[in-house]
Amino acid sequence: MTPSLPHVPRPDADTAAEPSGYAGRPVVRLKPKAEARAIRHGFPWVYADELVTDRRTQNLVPGALAVLEDADRRPLALVTVNTASKIIARVLDRDPLAQIDQAWFEARIGRALALRARLYPQPYYRLVHAEADALPGVVIDRFGDTAVVQPNAAWAEAHLEALVAALVAVTGVANVVKNGTGRARGLEGLSEETLLIRGAVDAPIKVPMNGATYLADVIGGQKTGLFFDQRPNHAFAASLAQGARVLDVFAHVGGFGLAALAGGAASVLAVDGSAPALALAEQGAAVSGFSGQFTTRQGDAFAVLEDLGTQASQFDLLICDPPAFAPNKPALEAGLRAYERVARLAAPLVAPGGYLVLCSCSHAADLVAFRNACGRGIGRGGRRAQLLHTGFAGPDHPLLPQLAESGYLKALFFRLDG
Amino acid sequence: MTPSLPHVPRPDADTAAEPSGYAGRPVVRLKPKAEARAIRHGFPWVYADELVTDRRTQNLVPGALAVLEDADRRPLALVTVNTASKIIARVLDRDPLAQIDQAWFEARIGRALALRARLYPQPYYRLVHAEADALPGVVIDRFGDTAVVQPNAAWAEAHLEALVAALVAVTGVANVVKNGTGRARGLEGLSEETLLIRGAVDAPIKVPMNGATYLADVIGGQKTGLFFDQRPNHAFAASLAQGARVLDVFAHVGGFGLAALAGGAASVLAVDGSAPALALAEQGAAVSGFSGQFTTRQGDAFAVLEDLGTQASQFDLLICDPPAFAPNKPALEAGLRAYERVARLAAPLVAPGGYLVLCSCSHAADLVAFRNACGRGIGRGGRRAQLLHTGFAGPDHPLLPQLAESGYLKALFFRLDG
Repeated sequence: MTPSLPHVPRPDADTAAEPSGYAGRPVVRLKPKAEARAIRHGFPWVYADELVTDRRTQNLVPGALAVLEDADRRPLALVTVNTASKIIARVLDRDPLAQIDQAWFEARIGRALALRARLYPQPYYRLVHAEADALPGVVIDRFGDTAVVQPNAAWAEAHLEALVAALVAVTGVANVVKNGTGRARGLEGLSEETLLIRGAVDAPIKVPMNGATYLADVIGGQKTGLFFDQRPNHAFAASLAQGARVLDVFAHVGGFGLAALAGGAASVLAVDGSAPALALAEQGAAVSGFSGQFTTRQGDAFAVLEDLGTQASQFDLLICDPPAFAPNKPALEAGLRAYERVARLAAPLVAPGGYLVLCSCSHAADLVAFRNACGRGIGRGGRRAQLLHTGFAGPDHPLLPQLAESGYLKALFFRLDG
Repeated sequence: MTPSLPHVPRPDADTAAEPSGYAGRPVVRLKPKAEARAIRHGFPWVYADELVTDRRTQNLVPGALAVLEDADRRPLALVTVNTASKIIARVLDRDPLAQIDQAWFEARIGRALALRARLYPQPYYRLVHAEADALPGVVIDRFGDTAVVQPNAAWAEAHLEALVAALVAVTGVANVVKNGTGRARGLEGLSEETLLIRGAVDAPIKVPMNGATYLADVIGGQKTGLFFDQRPNHAFAASLAQGARVLDVFAHVGGFGLAALAGGAASVLAVDGSAPALALAEQGAAVSGFSGQFTTRQGDAFAVLEDLGTQASQFDLLICDPPAFAPNKPALEAGLRAYERVARLAAPLVAPGGYLVLCSCSHAADLVAFRNACGRGIGRGGRRAQLLHTGFAGPDHPLLPQLAESGYLKALFFRLDG
């Protein structure tokens, strides 16, 4: 299955980043102590301290293609190099001579599509999830005949035309939006810009999911307008929702709340700091036929939780899906305290025997640390709990096993004491 | 919510395990350095080295009830004591004066039932999952109007009559089987015995699950006749199964295989070492209308995988759900090697772009260790993978957050390279 590469040292290659026998491509080389085996076994990244960074390598423009060799000058892969990034090289192809053209993108997008077509009856999903779909730094979300592309790495920006042509050819989408707001773009030296590059998008898109209809603003919204990653967790919450009074905190466009109503909830109060997000949530509720059961409250989530606490409000199902409180290691401790605080403020609002769903999309907070923070907060909120279910991002967000710790999304489903 | 206990030292209590003011119940006491806070916050166990074990405590019969006090003689909980066990005391109730009678069992079983009734449209589930359902050491599986009780702790054996009366009163089941084969019973000094204690069970029970019908032999089968814990993982496998050629290794009564056929699989080959289990799987296939697509092969799973490898057989969906290779810490290293070997032998049998599901029910192998073993095995089998989904036991197997590491079951869903 592994294409065998010629494992012959090339005696003519004396310096790194030189034009080479690989169709003139520059060469970059691992340091002698760097671990070539990981790359051979599918690890997709080379860190800056693993690569020989001589002058030629330093002069490569961000996103340049190069052939990665091991310290013994055996070719490992075609990579894209960005000397400004801690991840200095990303593997694009095991074949150092691969041509990065429309056909190459078509093969990768086609393989990504085959998985999603098997998983979902309707074309609303994350179509490409970066490294795990063999397109480093590239995220594509699909909303029916509209696709939103995030080229979050310099190489993808440079090859955007071929990528989009392949996307249209493989999926048949009519509209393509480039979303250039990804945090990673700054690290790659890319500017922020969001624009329509195919077709037309003149209104929020209706997205059917878990029995409800959501509205996604793919031009002006957060990220790509809707978070597909929580889909299975929305569904699990919906399975607990029959007849429930639901509080959906950090509701965004109503992800958990509308799914809960589709699952038979009696009522939903959706809280968010963003008025535009809540307006989309309300439109989604209207389109889904839930207007009479859906109310919103704009405000700071912590303040609203505290206020509901002083009113001794009670809910049968309470969901908190906050933004990443611990997006990186320096923020970890404060982030875990924030998660604990959310749990402490939320737990008293859950009716006896009711359900509390606590989510984290923090890379730095691993499952155990997050679960412990939640457990402490629930205890300090005066409650005891059973843990019913631990959910992660849906399968349209695959991971490379070698980067499985990159599974940022965690959703913990607790049942509180009666 | 927490019942407040009288936090007054009792000056008359000079030694542990003495008859006390607690309605004559014996008292056991934490050592000065033992952590009472954990118990107050819901931790359900006291380890042997945390308890004062004077002569009176040593003389308590296994399963005796006692009042647990902290080192300052403040009451913590009603516990059951077993001095032969490393877990020397288990919390039964925060009220030291609680009466362990039918009404007490009815309240706990009723609370457990409320969760399952919400989760499942039909009464086939794990009804009581021990500590997390506040019945330490007690497991009850429900198969319609039949319940199988595993009293895996001495206190439960001693109170079995009240427990069963409560079970019948709360659920209305007609038949109750006592399954006394649990491994924990030996540690508790209990003998093995399986017997019918209410009603009649004269044939394997039909269990509807994930669109298939399974047959559970609740008298003679493994554990309680059927593994409910894998239900959501069966369902996820089924979502990948449309049109697939499926290999179900360690198939038992056909858990994954029959669900895959219900999900549209073209064919299933089920492999297991147990002829009676495969006979039940075949009956299940017949009852489900899948006979023409379901074949079985009895034999050692490793030998069968090796044999299929020499034949270059290919499957679109391959599941390996072996018994616990690493049931305890001493077995961990060998267990992880066995998981790696399963992955290595299975990976080459997966068709390009097909799916590989690897499961572990080993307590000692945590998620990261198991995932790494699988990753190594897949790599040594010559394949690369995406990790699509990580599943655990279903929500009828809740966990105490404090014992969340006791989440023994892991199912990893990989998609292999094309």
